[in-house]
Amino acid sequence: MKPAAFIVVAVCGLVVLGGGDSALRAQSQAATPLASWNDGAAKQSILAFVRRVTTDGGPDFVPVPERIAVFDNDGTLWAEQPVYVQVLFAFDRVKALAPQHPEWQAREPFASALKGDLKGALAGGERAIAEIMMATHAGMTTDEFETIVREWLATARHPVTRQPYTEMVYQPMVELLAYLRANGFKTFIVSGGGIEFMRPWSERVYGVPPEQVIGSSIKTKYELRGNTPVLARLPEVSFIDDKAGKPVGIHEHIGRRPIAAFGNSDGDFEMLEWVTRGAGPRFGLIVHHDDAGREYAYDRTSPIGTLARALDAAPGRGWTVVSMKNDWKRVFHYEPK
Amino acid sequence: MKPAAFIVVAVCGLVVLGGGDSALRAQSQAATPLASWNDGAAKQSILAFVRRVTTDGGPDFVPVPERIAVFDNDGTLWAEQPVYVQVLFAFDRVKALAPQHPEWQAREPFASALKGDLKGALAGGERAIAEIMMATHAGMTTDEFETIVREWLATARHPVTRQPYTEMVYQPMVELLAYLRANGFKTFIVSGGGIEFMRPWSERVYGVPPEQVIGSSIKTKYELRGNTPVLARLPEVSFIDDKAGKPVGIHEHIGRRPIAAFGNSDGDFEMLEWVTRGAGPRFGLIVHHDDAGREYAYDRTSPIGTLARALDAAPGRGWTVVSMKNDWKRVFHYEPK
Repeated sequence: MKPAAFIVVAVCGLVVLGGGDSALRAQSQAATPLASWNDGAAKQSILAFVRRVTTDGGPDFVPVPERIAVFDNDGTLWAEQPVYVQVLFAFDRVKALAPQHPEWQAREPFASALKGDLKGALAGGERAIAEIMMATHAGMTTDEFETIVREWLATARHPVTRQPYTEMVYQPMVELLAYLRANGFKTFIVSGGGIEFMRPWSERVYGVPPEQVIGSSIKTKYELRGNTPVLARLPEVSFIDDKAGKPVGIHEHIGRRPIAAFGNSDGDFEMLEWVTRGAGPRFGLIVHHDDAGREYAYDRTSPIGTLARALDAAPGRGWTVVSMKNDWKRVFHYEPK
Repeated sequence: MKPAAFIVVAVCGLVVLGGGDSALRAQSQAATPLASWNDGAAKQSILAFVRRVTTDGGPDFVPVPERIAVFDNDGTLWAEQPVYVQVLFAFDRVKALAPQHPEWQAREPFASALKGDLKGALAGGERAIAEIMMATHAGMTTDEFETIVREWLATARHPVTRQPYTEMVYQPMVELLAYLRANGFKTFIVSGGGIEFMRPWSERVYGVPPEQVIGSSIKTKYELRGNTPVLARLPEVSFIDDKAGKPVGIHEHIGRRPIAAFGNSDGDFEMLEWVTRGAGPRFGLIVHHDDAGREYAYDRTSPIGTLARALDAAPGRGWTVVSMKNDWKRVFHYEPK
């Protein structure tokens, strides 16, 4: 069984947990487009691109059906520090399931996970991580998993800000999604995270319906339980939607090349390449986490959201690099105290 | 390598090739919804369902985002007799590629295929069929394959009517797709056929964009050729979207359960079950090919589009069974002479 690579990096991040003051500036939300964006080069590049592709009769006009935009999720639309949200979900699920698995008390990686010893839980490497993922993400129906995710998200809190995770979305990016849709774009999420972990809330939080969410997945099997048809979630990886997997996932789900891509890490490099190297007008954007005051500052050396290759390539490729510190008036959806 | 099951049945159908007069009644297309449908029980059941789910404040009202309808393609939206269109495409591709493969002249199943001896080409069973599929559907980029499909469809003709295949779509079903969309539905295709074989023309012919097409697929790989990023089509089956695979494909691509399903064969049984056994208002419909005069008459004993289990189940499940002969004023999009 191929281990879930997106989790490897994620869980490694747990060891650097901590830090990250959230001295966020309160800012009321205006009705104007991109209200939370400062009027700099990044915002101007977005406005200019949208103007080009929507100017009917112009040389770069793109018909509405071709206006496809793809967004990474972790670190691009919501916070991924100090650790990917889905990893915290998996560890919480280990605790919730422990009463049904008395053997976990004496078996790694579960024994360490239950003691809160994340480093110990990770000592088994990829195999240990895959075990935790499959024990917590498989073995139920798709309907049951959706309920589990909904219920967890309703009560779980970010370890630093104590906010619900759905409040930890980036307000400027939510505005950008809405702005693109108002201009005829269809917006998709293309994430290394689990497709079924995002779908239960993507429509409410981002305005992105489940059929426009692409992510990593495990296999499912159609079967009758008694007289009821269900889709059972199997402990077998189906697809890893990361790095060179992102263009593959985009093609499988969308079937045509998007004209705009938004990411924040080297995991998005191939997606940005695939999208921006097509013919006609193209747009690529990288969210650069350089705001230690309001969020986090990390790029080249961070185990989570490593950004080096894509950052180096950005100038030559014409990708817009967003400075969270300078380009955003406000970071999160919630209003910090 | 798992053989493409949908092709097995398809190619078996070649041996029964022949028959099928197309004494089609010409009928001008009216502007009213479902103009090509006679005013019988089938049409009434469609209208009543749409009224129920769109009546705001009514007990069965369904919000627009939940109005998802899924349609099989072969035999439901376009003709599948005397043989699946994609099979004819594959055999035409063998001929087109033969000059680059001199070894095929002496190697089965290609030698027989090149001589037009389809029965001989099939003597090797599933392995032979898989060989033909992979030789014709893999080994190029996704962009190249799209061009190949477009060019083939522009010139290929149905063996009996001599019409382009895109004229062999069922006019009443095209009207039904449009009627549902006019009532807030999002329409998807869910076919056992190849996803990349349908996407190049589904938007133009059905109004279904590529991102709403679900089908069987082979694997692709992202790579750089020189400096150009491409998706290479690999000779390896990724997913078979047939029978119990249809609910799996629906869930993977749509992420929520549709409320209406339209099919014509036992390959659609699980899709119909999955869709119509959910909570709230549900609609299932089977196109029954009982019109030997205008199209074909086949069900239980046909190797293509076998319809037995689903037909038997329909009354108990409340699925509407459409008699092409009695319920449709007109069959095809093209106007027969």
